[in-house]
Amino acid sequence: MPTWKATACAYSNIAFIKYWGNINDELRLPVSGSISMNLDGLRTRTTVDFENDLKSDAAVIDGKELPLGPALDRISKHMDYVRKLANNPHRALVISETNFPTGAGIASSASAFAALSLATAAALEVRLTERELSALARLGSGSASRSVPGGFVEWYAGTTHEASYAESIAPVDHWALTDVVAIISKAHKATGSTEGHSIAASSPLQAARIASAPQRLETCRKAILARDFDAFAEVVELDSNVMHSVMMTGNPALFYWLPTTLTLMETVRDLRKQGVGVCYTIDAGPNVHCICAPDAAPKVIAALQNIPGVLELKQATAGGPAYVEA
Amino acid sequence: MPTWKATACAYSNIAFIKYWGNINDELRLPVSGSISMNLDGLRTRTTVDFENDLKSDAAVIDGKELPLGPALDRISKHMDYVRKLANNPHRALVISETNFPTGAGIASSASAFAALSLATAAALEVRLTERELSALARLGSGSASRSVPGGFVEWYAGTTHEASYAESIAPVDHWALTDVVAIISKAHKATGSTEGHSIAASSPLQAARIASAPQRLETCRKAILARDFDAFAEVVELDSNVMHSVMMTGNPALFYWLPTTLTLMETVRDLRKQGVGVCYTIDAGPNVHCICAPDAAPKVIAALQNIPGVLELKQATAGGPAYVEA
Repeated sequence: MPTWKATACAYSNIAFIKYWGNINDELRLPVSGSISMNLDGLRTRTTVDFENDLKSDAAVIDGKELPLGPALDRISKHMDYVRKLANNPHRALVISETNFPTGAGIASSASAFAALSLATAAALEVRLTERELSALARLGSGSASRSVPGGFVEWYAGTTHEASYAESIAPVDHWALTDVVAIISKAHKATGSTEGHSIAASSPLQAARIASAPQRLETCRKAILARDFDAFAEVVELDSNVMHSVMMTGNPALFYWLPTTLTLMETVRDLRKQGVGVCYTIDAGPNVHCICAPDAAPKVIAALQNIPGVLELKQATAGGPAYVEA
Repeated sequence: MPTWKATACAYSNIAFIKYWGNINDELRLPVSGSISMNLDGLRTRTTVDFENDLKSDAAVIDGKELPLGPALDRISKHMDYVRKLANNPHRALVISETNFPTGAGIASSASAFAALSLATAAALEVRLTERELSALARLGSGSASRSVPGGFVEWYAGTTHEASYAESIAPVDHWALTDVVAIISKAHKATGSTEGHSIAASSPLQAARIASAPQRLETCRKAILARDFDAFAEVVELDSNVMHSVMMTGNPALFYWLPTTLTLMETVRDLRKQGVGVCYTIDAGPNVHCICAPDAAPKVIAALQNIPGVLELKQATAGGPAYVEA
């Protein structure tokens, strides 16, 4: 019996141009492309072990065994894609550790499904290209597609499984941005992203968001390639505001901002007016990602650390690609 | 010399379907219609006196003489429309009192320009219909058109001066709604409505807002006529959220919400989930208008009065039309 066991690591990522809404929920084909940066140090490490006598898949996440239910089903279904490719029906024990709070606006499903994809493919000895791994990860969680390649990443929306994948548009060392994540809640969000994506189309503003996304993608891509922080900051905040507009006007309306979120957004805008290179972006949760130009992070941390309601500040620079441990 | 002096009163109004953006800034022809309720007791009383030897217009607002500048020019320009109709070049002393805080999301310009329109027309003995007075008031401040007729009011967008006016769609006693205004700031807003309207078109979401407005107008009109609070609450909150989405995604982005605004929005949604008939709507300012179904106001006040940051709760039921004092 071969060694059907492997461990992989992947970093979370922060989207500068957001993913919100699918043209195909089953395949997680998004309504528009997105651009992100991997987050060094905000990592999921996952071991997949098919060398066992399990009758069904089991998973231990951050030290706790997952009960039977939708979370375990989602992992099983994801491994099914690879089992099918490998023509291997074995069940697996999945052990996964994530070193940052999950479910509160830092994309833990991104690093989790990227790591699971690489570990499962490696364990079952299915050789996939980076592009194929990115598309595979997308099936588990859309944003996981962006945690497969390294550095600054663009996910091309595509209209088929094969055409919807992410790739690097600039390497890790291209631009020394720092994401200072202001954590104001560690609670699991009330409405998860998967459900949220299916609500997006009910907003009267989503069609306009989709129609205007290509322009924001181009502006952001160019700003990253030219390291133009002013242009970058403007489009990143705009895109975050546009996504939350769609969220707040859907049926049901989704409000992810807390009062402290607004305080932080205003503080960041004020800092930028004072000449500090920083902008905010917010995912499907209350925490605020403060993206800092090179050397701006200390000033931003000094301004944020004493704001009431800020529990913790995490820092991350650009992270590398997902990888299988030797 | 005739008695060229008159006093008029007008109530503020709260828009359920909002006005934001013009197709013609000079004439204040809006991009879409709007629906509102006059607010009994939130009143401006204005006396216009042409019996004097003034070389230029003068105005005393809430006890303070207005200096030369854009605010006085706006009043002068407004009286010019009536002076032209009356073929009367005299200058006026305007004395105006408003009994609620101005510039913080309660439409003080609405009651002010409605009262000024009626007082000026009466003083100069220009006989205008309610429709003509509404259109005249609109030239001073768009929302003032809605403070001319009484009760529940719809402003028809129109594409010419004459066609853009408001009229009652239901009388004062049609539905015993109460607006509980949670005042959290009495500061004058940073970006006034007139400037804000000219920014609206820069949002990538404004075209979608305009395109979807007729549906919300119809839903709101029907809900008011049928006294269907559930349908009313849903469309009123949606329309407020849609307008603030446009504000937050314009260039420059306009943020009128304060942290306490978000707290109040959530409290109102929670109350409604618990069966209390209440919904929120927010104008171009941080204060939250909590629109209460008949008999719900005491429960809403009990829930809001101890929220930190709430300075004052004002109550208003449906108000009558603007009128000239005998």
